[in-house]
Amino acid sequence: LAQVTVIGAGYMGSAMCWPLRDNGHQIRLVGTPLDAKIIRSCREASWHPKLKRALPDGVEPLYAEQLEQALHGAQLVIQGVSSAGVPWFAGTIGPRLRPDLPVLSITKGLALAPDGTLQTLPGWVDSSLPTQLRGHIPLAAVGGPCIAGELAGRRPSCVVFTGREASLLDRLASMLRTDYYHIWTSTDVPAVETCVALKNGFTLGIALALGMLDRQGGPDAADARMHNLAATLFAQATLEMERIVQLMGGDPVAVRGLPGVGDLFVTVQGGRSVAIGRLLGSGRPLAEALHQLEGVTLESVDVIRVLGKALPVYQRRKMLRPKDLPLVHHLIEIVVEGKPVNLPLDLFFRG
Amino acid sequence: LAQVTVIGAGYMGSAMCWPLRDNGHQIRLVGTPLDAKIIRSCREASWHPKLKRALPDGVEPLYAEQLEQALHGAQLVIQGVSSAGVPWFAGTIGPRLRPDLPVLSITKGLALAPDGTLQTLPGWVDSSLPTQLRGHIPLAAVGGPCIAGELAGRRPSCVVFTGREASLLDRLASMLRTDYYHIWTSTDVPAVETCVALKNGFTLGIALALGMLDRQGGPDAADARMHNLAATLFAQATLEMERIVQLMGGDPVAVRGLPGVGDLFVTVQGGRSVAIGRLLGSGRPLAEALHQLEGVTLESVDVIRVLGKALPVYQRRKMLRPKDLPLVHHLIEIVVEGKPVNLPLDLFFRG
Repeated sequence: LAQVTVIGAGYMGSAMCWPLRDNGHQIRLVGTPLDAKIIRSCREASWHPKLKRALPDGVEPLYAEQLEQALHGAQLVIQGVSSAGVPWFAGTIGPRLRPDLPVLSITKGLALAPDGTLQTLPGWVDSSLPTQLRGHIPLAAVGGPCIAGELAGRRPSCVVFTGREASLLDRLASMLRTDYYHIWTSTDVPAVETCVALKNGFTLGIALALGMLDRQGGPDAADARMHNLAATLFAQATLEMERIVQLMGGDPVAVRGLPGVGDLFVTVQGGRSVAIGRLLGSGRPLAEALHQLEGVTLESVDVIRVLGKALPVYQRRKMLRPKDLPLVHHLIEIVVEGKPVNLPLDLFFRG
Repeated sequence: LAQVTVIGAGYMGSAMCWPLRDNGHQIRLVGTPLDAKIIRSCREASWHPKLKRALPDGVEPLYAEQLEQALHGAQLVIQGVSSAGVPWFAGTIGPRLRPDLPVLSITKGLALAPDGTLQTLPGWVDSSLPTQLRGHIPLAAVGGPCIAGELAGRRPSCVVFTGREASLLDRLASMLRTDYYHIWTSTDVPAVETCVALKNGFTLGIALALGMLDRQGGPDAADARMHNLAATLFAQATLEMERIVQLMGGDPVAVRGLPGVGDLFVTVQGGRSVAIGRLLGSGRPLAEALHQLEGVTLESVDVIRVLGKALPVYQRRKMLRPKDLPLVHHLIEIVVEGKPVNLPLDLFFRG
């Protein structure tokens, strides 16, 4: 049994308390500076306002100001901040880490490396750590279809832990595995982490179909919707996800498993990436759509912006042709260049 | 412009009238003996009761008894009967076909070859034709995500025409392609047709999650559902679909496109395969579930039964190990052997 410190009291960080606690670990859940309200509610009302549940008995909620105390004696850190919070994590938690203290990250995203190519999130976290720790923190990350509220509800959830050291992954999996939280392991970090990040961008793309239907006045008198179009976008997203995973040096088999189609399938069920895609699909300009969703982290928009910067670098290096990723290119046109939605369906499923 | 005869006035056969008519072809829509009510409604009330729309102007609805007249001068036959209707089609329409008259089939299913292995539907249709025509009818088939009501509503729909002759596929595609009906072609018949058939069986499997949620009393107070589990089943279905496509000699790339994940995604949105899977997932015995859905063709159950017969043949030939297809094997246990639902999640994503 271990002392575990979860950093970040949002949906997913908090949900990790369930399998950890059911396995008997001691848990401290530390909010980021943005999570003060959540921590207060957990401490004073025994209620997690995002998950709409009481935390499991024995989880200790702590404020960001109590970081020192929270990390004292920790044997595992769960990195549960959003991708926007990674610099804060690296700057604030980084100096307090030790080379033997493993970090399991649940953050999603791709970052730009200094040469303009794409970098997976564990790579970015590592490169953001204090110099003497870089390459020395045992880093792992989680991929696969896992809505936090379902994990906290102890509904069956299947995920993949990824990292470079198989022995670390096995150790972490045995700490967290329960009869409802099923864990596979993979040392193919580029494949799993690329899928994890891309699924939000592609979900925005698939949700364009919902907005296009809205724009045509919704279902017609015979209730015809646009599921056929959404399915087409899903299929093209699968193919383009494979291409980007290959570009990142990963094995595309991950796309046909939990991290790829599995996570994409669950993400399309609802949430922020669907909401923004639907607004854009209905013809709303990006600024207006963003305004309407103000205050929420839009990982979908972030990852498309990062792709918009990085893909030209790969094209200049002849590693990619524009026609290889027609859906991604149109998403960049919509999100970065503000162009209207006009799906290039006839460029799909080529090559 | 061509004279086209559509055989079968169910959802999909009838929906094909829209792109055909929008391209100016002359269309006769002939009901099977089971479609008499539909044809009467189309003729007397100008209303297709299943699609809940009037047929396009110029489509001529005819009864099964008017087959001779319907096929007179036909330049293309659309085979729109269900898989249960294929023997009727072969026995009744077969003798009236000519070696130069192409048949485009929209039927889904896998059949058993005489040696107990699996046979795609075009192969089955061909082998059911009168001896002198076998191997001489230009056969093609349609795969991909296409809800009939959306095609009839002229919503964007993307499909694949498959057949052994590329020139036939190009000709058919140019006859049917419109600005809302997008057509790709593939000569990989085993891959496309295996996907087309399997998607109903796997949809039943994915829908088990809905029933398992029902059995636990539905969403909990915090609205936790079982999307994570459904996504896990979707991912495993994708992997097993690839394995069966390979077993059939097809290229598994089709699984990552319209015929595979595309069609599976759209089929999971609703319909009969979802309904039966949900009932089974909730613990209802097969007989009771079938009784509740009486009168509807259950292609999902049919394809699982066919797999239950054929897979042991492949295993005896050492082409397959039982552990290669844990989801399919459990679906066979449920549907053929009447065993209770008990998903072997920990056997998923191996090898």
